[in-house]
Amino acid sequence: MADLEFRSDNCGRAAPELIQALVSANEGSALGYGGDALTQQLHTRMSELFEHPVQIFPVPTGTGANALALAAVGSPFGAVYCSPEAHINTSECNATSFFGSGLKVTPVPGVDGKIDPLALEAAVSTAGKGQAHKNQPEAINLVQATDMGAVYSVSEVTALSQVARAHGLTVHMDGARFANAVATLGCSPAELTWKAGVDILSFGVTKNGGLLTDAIVVFNPDIAKKMGFHLRRAGMIWSKMRFASAQVLAYVQDDLWLRLARQSNAAATTIAVALETMKGVKLLAPVQANEIFIEMHAAAIDQLAEQGVLFYRRGPTRARLVCRWDTTQDEIAQLIAIVRACSQAR
Amino acid sequence: MADLEFRSDNCGRAAPELIQALVSANEGSALGYGGDALTQQLHTRMSELFEHPVQIFPVPTGTGANALALAAVGSPFGAVYCSPEAHINTSECNATSFFGSGLKVTPVPGVDGKIDPLALEAAVSTAGKGQAHKNQPEAINLVQATDMGAVYSVSEVTALSQVARAHGLTVHMDGARFANAVATLGCSPAELTWKAGVDILSFGVTKNGGLLTDAIVVFNPDIAKKMGFHLRRAGMIWSKMRFASAQVLAYVQDDLWLRLARQSNAAATTIAVALETMKGVKLLAPVQANEIFIEMHAAAIDQLAEQGVLFYRRGPTRARLVCRWDTTQDEIAQLIAIVRACSQAR
Amino acid sequence: MADLEFRSDNCGRAAPELIQALVSANEGSALGYGGDALTQQLHTRMSELFEHPVQIFPVPTGTGANALALAAVGSPFGAVYCSPEAHINTSECNATSFFGSGLKVTPVPGVDGKIDPLALEAAVSTAGKGQAHKNQPEAINLVQATDMGAVYSVSEVTALSQVARAHGLTVHMDGARFANAVATLGCSPAELTWKAGVDILSFGVTKNGGLLTDAIVVFNPDIAKKMGFHLRRAGMIWSKMRFASAQVLAYVQDDLWLRLARQSNAAATTIAVALETMKGVKLLAPVQANEIFIEMHAAAIDQLAEQGVLFYRRGPTRARLVCRWDTTQDEIAQLIAIVRACSQAR
Amino acid sequence: MADLEFRSDNCGRAAPELIQALVSANEGSALGYGGDALTQQLHTRMSELFEHPVQIFPVPTGTGANALALAAVGSPFGAVYCSPEAHINTSECNATSFFGSGLKVTPVPGVDGKIDPLALEAAVSTAGKGQAHKNQPEAINLVQATDMGAVYSVSEVTALSQVARAHGLTVHMDGARFANAVATLGCSPAELTWKAGVDILSFGVTKNGGLLTDAIVVFNPDIAKKMGFHLRRAGMIWSKMRFASAQVLAYVQDDLWLRLARQSNAAATTIAVALETMKGVKLLAPVQANEIFIEMHAAAIDQLAEQGVLFYRRGPTRARLVCRWDTTQDEIAQLIAIVRACSQAR
Repeated sequence: MADLEFRSDNCGRAAPELIQALVSANEGSALGYGGDALTQQLHTRMSELFEHPVQIFPVPTGTGANALALAAVGSPFGAVYCSPEAHINTSECNATSFFGSGLKVTPVPGVDGKIDPLALEAAVSTAGKGQAHKNQPEAINLVQATDMGAVYSVSEVTALSQVARAHGLTVHMDGARFANAVATLGCSPAELTWKAGVDILSFGVTKNGGLLTDAIVVFNPDIAKKMGFHLRRAGMIWSKMRFASAQVLAYVQDDLWLRLARQSNAAATTIAVALETMKGVKLLAPVQANEIFIEMHAAAIDQLAEQGVLFYRRGPTRARLVCRWDTTQDEIAQLIAIVRACSQAR
Repeated sequence: MADLEFRSDNCGRAAPELIQALVSANEGSALGYGGDALTQQLHTRMSELFEHPVQIFPVPTGTGANALALAAVGSPFGAVYCSPEAHINTSECNATSFFGSGLKVTPVPGVDGKIDPLALEAAVSTAGKGQAHKNQPEAINLVQATDMGAVYSVSEVTALSQVARAHGLTVHMDGARFANAVATLGCSPAELTWKAGVDILSFGVTKNGGLLTDAIVVFNPDIAKKMGFHLRRAGMIWSKMRFASAQVLAYVQDDLWLRLARQSNAAATTIAVALETMKGVKLLAPVQANEIFIEMHAAAIDQLAEQGVLFYRRGPTRARLVCRWDTTQDEIAQLIAIVRACSQAR
Repeated sequence: MADLEFRSDNCGRAAPELIQALVSANEGSALGYGGDALTQQLHTRMSELFEHPVQIFPVPTGTGANALALAAVGSPFGAVYCSPEAHINTSECNATSFFGSGLKVTPVPGVDGKIDPLALEAAVSTAGKGQAHKNQPEAINLVQATDMGAVYSVSEVTALSQVARAHGLTVHMDGARFANAVATLGCSPAELTWKAGVDILSFGVTKNGGLLTDAIVVFNPDIAKKMGFHLRRAGMIWSKMRFASAQVLAYVQDDLWLRLARQSNAAATTIAVALETMKGVKLLAPVQANEIFIEMHAAAIDQLAEQGVLFYRRGPTRARLVCRWDTTQDEIAQLIAIVRACSQAR
Repeated sequence: MADLEFRSDNCGRAAPELIQALVSANEGSALGYGGDALTQQLHTRMSELFEHPVQIFPVPTGTGANALALAAVGSPFGAVYCSPEAHINTSECNATSFFGSGLKVTPVPGVDGKIDPLALEAAVSTAGKGQAHKNQPEAINLVQATDMGAVYSVSEVTALSQVARAHGLTVHMDGARFANAVATLGCSPAELTWKAGVDILSFGVTKNGGLLTDAIVVFNPDIAKKMGFHLRRAGMIWSKMRFASAQVLAYVQDDLWLRLARQSNAAATTIAVALETMKGVKLLAPVQANEIFIEMHAAAIDQLAEQGVLFYRRGPTRARLVCRWDTTQDEIAQLIAIVRACSQAR
């Protein structure tokens, strides 16, 4: 019985194009800390991609991208509103407060890992703006695709941005799976970000074929002013930046990022379509990216693990299954067969 | 007139062996965050190299390595003693205080970028241990090779560790150029670290042929206990850790790290030998690694820049020249010729 | 129409005994920062009061007491569990994260401003202990009396402490209205604290007849070790400490603190008894200390304010009324009459 | 042999006028957190005193005042320049970095506890403004009177402010002994502060007859904007603020603060005049306020302690003697006699 890898998209390989980009970048000398030609090229390339003058900062991890982005827009007295399932709330070991000098993460209810706009309005409007006893609403954090595997539509992002804007809050998008969301929606990167009110984006690379870099994309130039200092004191600016920039350049070259995302999305969709017909298997949220959250009897989940499927549990009766850009048709078929068998178990 | 690159060792290429290691690591799936086989192998390999059971944490940058190491051994009320020229004091934009929740960097005099043991003893013994008004001595930071291009001998490290130990302080070595120091001294890595009293080491890779990773090596297991949390909240633990571990494994394979360091050391030595005979050029510190600090007339320094030598000034009459593992004989010869010409200028 | 003061117990006067204590303390010279005789006497006196060797640290405010207490027991990676209404969660402008270097405040459901023990058990046992992605459960915070005006019984405190203890968490009691709770329960201070599992207490003085000081009482000596440094770096240790210690000594002299609390408790009870018979007025929680939370039509609440009652709204249909130790029978009678009149309004 | 108290001005009594002010303030109810009439009155009164619209924030301690003031004007990437002897550098247990989210305290040479303007210019102009590797110059801290007992003249403050201003730095004055300095110089409070370029002042009360409060005075209104949040999250805003404001009002009423300062200054001058004629006693700095720093043989210093003089040593051969507003002629005479006797000892 072979292990079937559905633990995380970060268990996957790097796309060979990105490795090749490292090989190509390794020619001659280059100024450090982003002074190199590839990094300059990256600013131009990303501005084209987003149809807007952006600043881009490659950083080692998605947690780093999120925490730096929020620190750049928040204060020690501030609060960032997010969904309860948001990565910054559940999985970053207080990084937002760390980088943000005390900045608080405040969950707001919603479904499918999204923030509900009415709940956001209620939370912000009763937060006690201007009262020194109260932390001050400063930003919202939208995870795209969400931590439940759903995708915010452009109009959903716009609606939340409007609430944020009305109260003077900055809009941060945690795009750890931004490529998956863009691939699903078929919209342009611009439509899903600054045109919809997003000020700053954590641009995920690692989970979708990257190896050691993600990036921050800043649409609002005021926010970028102190970013260099934030990066430096956080030890998040590589001296040999060219090797990070080369990866991101390769990632967006010829739509590679979208092709990779379509592969993992398609894998997840195939699985979801099969699973939703099975008695005893419940999908917990719409499968709109590359993650599938299911509910089964605890015994069925146990059996899934015993059958060699690698995945993470979310409580006794829940499991998360994640597809990689390099998940194979064979893995998909095996998974479906095993889930089917387990779902019929008692 | 071609540019002659002597700005920094981080302007150099990666060693091809490390790039190749990335290619090789890109096979199959692997558990994230250090749960992969290469990272496990790295612990074993580094324990062999250091002749001691160590824990190793690859991190993106040397600043990250230093700040995390010091945060792991210091407290918000603490002070870390270092040389005035130490990287943590001059070039990390308050990172030690950031990671250390207020931990203060306190310079202690010395020569050639070293801490003087008597000055350390004086500083620590009058620091007001136990008095709440005073920040509390908690650690020392030794930069190896120093930020003036010199190297601490094993006995110098031992002497400083003894002062530290006598006062209950932890010993951190910032080994951004650890390979250069070991290559110069001809000692074993063990002799220069835990056998000489070092508790935790920033193990430099980037400046000596790495690309996107450095590492923390922990000799004292108590220190390592909370390191996982420190890394995580700092966004400094890669999900695809295998690609970092692969680099470090290749770096120490077959003494590659020492071979590379010997190359840059030899380049610097050649240059230093030539320069010290020139009238009008003064070496500011012994050239024992790959960095050369010189003093010349301001006009001579100006001319050096005009002649196409790329380097960093340290004030109007001072310059730093750094050799890379891939600095060529031709570059060396050209530099010597240009310095000679400039030194004779008025 | 005269103003009727029901905004807060901190709007009240200081007890004359505490002012007199300041006069008496102003004799001769005294060593600073707690080295004086009165502060020494305070340690002894509080150890007697609590039937346990305690350490006591007078501090300027309740927020200071809470934040310092939690910083002393928590870490940058930690989480403190509290009720959603807890002062540290709603009214201290991120102080816990500030003093605790990132320490997170995590609300757990319950009623009447209390933590529900089952909800606590559920939250802590699924928090991911030992997983670096997750902040780590480190402490619980019990507000006594609660921020809804109720009081935890001794057995309720014990039950929560047992859950905490089973998971290795420290128990902090925010006793801003500790005197009111002890007065209501008729138990000893010891029974409500260390005998019930409390490790550290914010001992409220200000709201109950103090003027410029509250205090931290530490039952577990390990916690106290670094408190001096915490206080100092927070600017929370007075040089002329004798004037703070004198207040606390006077406060507990001859049960003054309990007599004052009984007065404000009795005032609240009288009001509550009257209000609960009124149609159109709903008590939102049991009135067990000196605070009353009511629900009325929005128009009725508006009218209350128009009639000269000073109080804080908690949303359009809710109000908080707080009694002081020096609230008069006349104020009580007037308030009841006005609420009655407003409650019949349309 | 009676103890002779020369340890600190914070060992002295409170001025009876301030105690009386507390008695008087204890009438009726008052809104908390500075919403009371006395605090409003204080803003007006201090604006008159400083001939400028100021905002004043009473805070519990001088360390709190300094740290909050610097946090209000500095950033996590910043550096505050001060003299090596400055209280923020030597005696506040990393408070500046704590409140300032990493803000670094950087000593600049000078004499008599002052910053030298040329050294300041040199430090700031080579600090690497705009370079992300370097912490950024943001403020200077002038201690008035200095921590060596000297006083900055108005022109000295002006000269340093001009250097600061030329580089965009904010000027903070640590006026723990501001009254002593004004009393010595005979200038107006305005001349020594905003007219000389000071933006924000720690206005000392405690050491000069206060009991539990000092204050922050803000001349530049931009700085004050977020002060309420800083105070609140630091637990430094009293609910019963009227009792702090009452002290400060009494302190400046009818020049009380200057009369008290003249008393301690006169005591120190008398002592200094006597000591400077003694062989074997060296004054380490001009005695321009209420502190005297002397150098004697170690044996003589030992004997001083044995003779019952209470004071703090600053190394084996150095001592600090501090006069209080209530230091008596008899204490002065006794001290002079004992020092004379000790100075002749071998």
